[in-house]
Amino acid sequence: MNIPQELELLPKIKGPADVRACSVKELETMAAEIRQVIISQVSQTGGHLAPNLGTVELTLALFRAFDLDQDKLIWDVGHQAYTHKLLTGRLNRFDTLRQFGGVSGFPRMAESPYDHFGVGHSSTSISAGLGIATARDLKEEDFNVVSVIGDGSLTGGLAFEGLNQAGDLERPFIVVLNDNEMSISTNVGALSRFLSRTVSAPMFVRWKDFVERRIKDIPGIGDELHHWAKRGKDSFKSFFTPGMLFEAFRFNYVGPLDGHDIGALADTFEQVKRIDTPVLVHVMTKKGKGYKPAETNPTYFHGVGRFEPETGLAPKPTPGGWASYTEVFGATLCTLAQRDEKIVAITAAMPEGTGTDCFRTRFPERFHDVGICEQHAVTFAAGLATQGYKPAVSIYSTFLQRSYDQIIHDVCLQNLNVNFFLDRGGLVGEDGATHHGAFDLSFLRLIPNMTLMAPKDEDELARMMATAFAVDGPTAVRYPRGMGVGVAVDPRLQPLQVGTGELERSGSDGAIIAIGSRVLPAMEAAEELSREQGLELAVFNARFVKPLPKEQLLALAAEHKCLIIVEENAIMGGFSSAVLELLADNGAMDGLRVHRMGLPDAFVEHGTQKELRTLLGIDKQGIKQRVLDVMR
Amino acid sequence: MNIPQELELLPKIKGPADVRACSVKELETMAAEIRQVIISQVSQTGGHLAPNLGTVELTLALFRAFDLDQDKLIWDVGHQAYTHKLLTGRLNRFDTLRQFGGVSGFPRMAESPYDHFGVGHSSTSISAGLGIATARDLKEEDFNVVSVIGDGSLTGGLAFEGLNQAGDLERPFIVVLNDNEMSISTNVGALSRFLSRTVSAPMFVRWKDFVERRIKDIPGIGDELHHWAKRGKDSFKSFFTPGMLFEAFRFNYVGPLDGHDIGALADTFEQVKRIDTPVLVHVMTKKGKGYKPAETNPTYFHGVGRFEPETGLAPKPTPGGWASYTEVFGATLCTLAQRDEKIVAITAAMPEGTGTDCFRTRFPERFHDVGICEQHAVTFAAGLATQGYKPAVSIYSTFLQRSYDQIIHDVCLQNLNVNFFLDRGGLVGEDGATHHGAFDLSFLRLIPNMTLMAPKDEDELARMMATAFAVDGPTAVRYPRGMGVGVAVDPRLQPLQVGTGELERSGSDGAIIAIGSRVLPAMEAAEELSREQGLELAVFNARFVKPLPKEQLLALAAEHKCLIIVEENAIMGGFSSAVLELLADNGAMDGLRVHRMGLPDAFVEHGTQKELRTLLGIDKQGIKQRVLDVMR
Repeated sequence: MNIPQELELLPKIKGPADVRACSVKELETMAAEIRQVIISQVSQTGGHLAPNLGTVELTLALFRAFDLDQDKLIWDVGHQAYTHKLLTGRLNRFDTLRQFGGVSGFPRMAESPYDHFGVGHSSTSISAGLGIATARDLKEEDFNVVSVIGDGSLTGGLAFEGLNQAGDLERPFIVVLNDNEMSISTNVGALSRFLSRTVSAPMFVRWKDFVERRIKDIPGIGDELHHWAKRGKDSFKSFFTPGMLFEAFRFNYVGPLDGHDIGALADTFEQVKRIDTPVLVHVMTKKGKGYKPAETNPTYFHGVGRFEPETGLAPKPTPGGWASYTEVFGATLCTLAQRDEKIVAITAAMPEGTGTDCFRTRFPERFHDVGICEQHAVTFAAGLATQGYKPAVSIYSTFLQRSYDQIIHDVCLQNLNVNFFLDRGGLVGEDGATHHGAFDLSFLRLIPNMTLMAPKDEDELARMMATAFAVDGPTAVRYPRGMGVGVAVDPRLQPLQVGTGELERSGSDGAIIAIGSRVLPAMEAAEELSREQGLELAVFNARFVKPLPKEQLLALAAEHKCLIIVEENAIMGGFSSAVLELLADNGAMDGLRVHRMGLPDAFVEHGTQKELRTLLGIDKQGIKQRVLDVMR
Repeated sequence: MNIPQELELLPKIKGPADVRACSVKELETMAAEIRQVIISQVSQTGGHLAPNLGTVELTLALFRAFDLDQDKLIWDVGHQAYTHKLLTGRLNRFDTLRQFGGVSGFPRMAESPYDHFGVGHSSTSISAGLGIATARDLKEEDFNVVSVIGDGSLTGGLAFEGLNQAGDLERPFIVVLNDNEMSISTNVGALSRFLSRTVSAPMFVRWKDFVERRIKDIPGIGDELHHWAKRGKDSFKSFFTPGMLFEAFRFNYVGPLDGHDIGALADTFEQVKRIDTPVLVHVMTKKGKGYKPAETNPTYFHGVGRFEPETGLAPKPTPGGWASYTEVFGATLCTLAQRDEKIVAITAAMPEGTGTDCFRTRFPERFHDVGICEQHAVTFAAGLATQGYKPAVSIYSTFLQRSYDQIIHDVCLQNLNVNFFLDRGGLVGEDGATHHGAFDLSFLRLIPNMTLMAPKDEDELARMMATAFAVDGPTAVRYPRGMGVGVAVDPRLQPLQVGTGELERSGSDGAIIAIGSRVLPAMEAAEELSREQGLELAVFNARFVKPLPKEQLLALAAEHKCLIIVEENAIMGGFSSAVLELLADNGAMDGLRVHRMGLPDAFVEHGTQKELRTLLGIDKQGIKQRVLDVMR
């Protein structure tokens, strides 16, 4: 990386010890330098901007107060760890952020000895930190474990499960609650109101009741006290703090503290280190801090593409006005909901990310943002479905893994009409291994009663959505991250025939069977092979992973000696595996060669979608090459 | 059912209206009758005894106070709903409890219009109930929704996710906390201590601090008040109730109430019905109430087999002294832990069920019961593994579905040495559809880095355990519910060669490839086919679902024209599917017929394991028949 010349202090930091050697004043200067680097870098490559700007001072204070060559810092989600990366020897490579072969956007154990737990999904830091603290005590070692969790992540049940055991074990363990009053979007839920010190009505009622009934009877001073207690409500209200909740879990509570005051924060952390039971330090931060556009619109700047650093504006959209799959999903959902009042929408803290924000505007009564809790989202949807509603549960593929048991046990076992819409199915690109939707076709197709689809383009997505609501039972549609292919959506939104695919192209030299995002590259590959090599391949768009287009697939198998199956999903147990089962169960294997193309049995790193598809050989060129290889 | 003559009131109850017509005195008599029926029935067929005995009065009070022809009662887990079943028209069929074709051990929507949400796993009732309440309000209907959840189930994060949204929505919604101070075993976690009114040290410290600093300064009465507040600690302590926690979530709190006083409970519920915001009613019950042996040993009688009703004693064990897989697991884990101090054990509220109770006794420092929270169990284990420990995470197959994301994201992505031991893999029998471990081989084998095994007998289980700890990376061993096959465990506990199976029998007429519990039936089938039909089949025990014994399987495929694959796992995406992938990827399909046997693509009902295996054709007889069918 070309380190900007105006950086004075940051380039000198090779590791945590160098930070500890700085004065608070120097750290304040360094905070400005770090912000400059982050804004400059993210404006060029995209990334998580607002969360990282919010934790600059908090990170510096943690580095000052703790000895991070011994103590272990665990970040929840990890989309706020850029400062941590810059302070632990990754400034030089920071210009490779989120790029293929470069620095990851999240902490990763393989990337640095200072990354003690890899992360990307929410609410894991308390459990992981407690595991590390427990190991420390078993080994009779002596270091601090500090888990930093956002108030949004705290709505995930896993965080509570961790608090519950941590409080019980009573080991030294520090949780820093990074409270910016947001998750990705505005935070929701009773807890978030509690953290912002809104004393709940039930609490107030009981306080009043206590004052009325109990205090009056205290001999001697009862009346006077009662008089005072009624008057002195405000004073007593100071006893109702967010701390009560954590104290109930046997945590000590410290806070709330100003999360941008390095000196005061570091001093408090120094105190907290000495407590030998679990402590929660409540820190108030501002998402997007120090960069006006991000402070003003922290949701947009949560995770962002390229932008002009001076203005915060995104580059002009590419001509043609193509829409993203997310936008098509959001608009189509509104259209369908207009026609069918039983459709309700559920998101787990991502109205913007999933494109349901327009639904929220148009049908507020039928919209539910439940917070970061995919498990509850699904079981809540199941409850709605028992009463005749048709919930659209819109969750990124990778996060749907969180609700696997609820999908099996609460939805599919009861054959309820819950409809899952999985954005970011397949390779997501720069967010990398924790975020690829690599497994959904495999883990969903094995559940009885499920209807499972993947569209080749925007229009097919829209028609699959109409199909989903027409099917009486659980359905899932998975579609890729990013822009559509430029196909207009037919406003009739006609449902597809369940279990039926579409022959896109005829040919007698073999057949390519593709699903979802791989259909168009397969067609392009077939066209080029025809032009360039005179090879004529049939291309079949399966549309349905479950139920499979059985008759069509068996007919293809009967007509061809060679089938090539392509999907952007794990090759283990995925679509191609379903086709193999069909062939075996129908005695259609004999005389046939089946070649499978998909995501490897390994976790895929970060890089652009294009790079990764090329690397894994599932783009047009890869398909052509594979055809040529097998035809030889 | 032959209704016992001494039952006077219960047989007259055809539905909720009949219960409402009874006096409290009659209901008290009925409670005794219900207990008699439950004890008598469970003693003959097994079932969940202690939880059901604990909720007799609570159920009667709910039926009295609510109009359950309108209002909807949602049971969490559902292992406490026998009284509910007896009061809603299922007395006549109650002698078919948990038997094939008979009454389910859990609420099921298909079984009764009074079962509003099917259940079996923990912590779903608040989310499902909130979904139903939300649907009610959308439709502008008017009925009460009452979710009954145990204090054990409250440790599951899903329950908190539900509370968090429920408190925020502020709809009328009633949660009854059935607090027996136990989950399946003794309850654990900070929350359980809080519910039992143990004011935590941090809370006490803050109260003291508040009194010292704030109250003293109140003009006029400060000193006197301060004096009193210090003295009157006990009075003020009454303000610290379990209610505070729920009030923080914006719930009204009522309780704690005696859960065995029908009249008082019903009166309170009548009051609670009028509150138009979320209410939590805290009810104290005694697990096993009214049956001495169950009161004394509620963990044993949580779920129990046949017993003598007079004494509570189980029938004499069958001769031969065979051990269950659970016992072999528990004993072997202790042996291995004795040799390797890095082995730690984790259970999610089931030390007895998983057989880790002996580990708890021998290695208390290395044992963790985290409560009913499979997600935390796995991420906590991942944290321990980062520090060089080798956690044995022992969870029933069906409950492991709860931690799917944690297995992928926290364990396998980081290739951590966490070892999963899945009891109850395959058909579990009488607990039915919610409890079968039908999917584990399918959903685990698709995760990169996972090593996945299933043993044919006790000795192989023990050797696979040794293998798991020897492998550097995540592993899973799944084994069946129930007794082993009577094979002695070789005390050397030699690890197996990873990715290698065992040819159990040679033969030239075809090959049966089996995994886990299906290996021995396959061998018996082959023996009988040899004797009776002169057919000579090879039998191959694959041992590893991942990595597959590649060379051995390809050799079998080369030698035979016909392969029959048998597993006790979903036929979708399971072991047989993995074999098909191997064959396709190695061009070994040609000239081959592959016949797949496993669990169907449908949820399997309850019945004995033997009945179900016969029904699904995966027992010895079914395998024989299939061989004969395909050989014809």
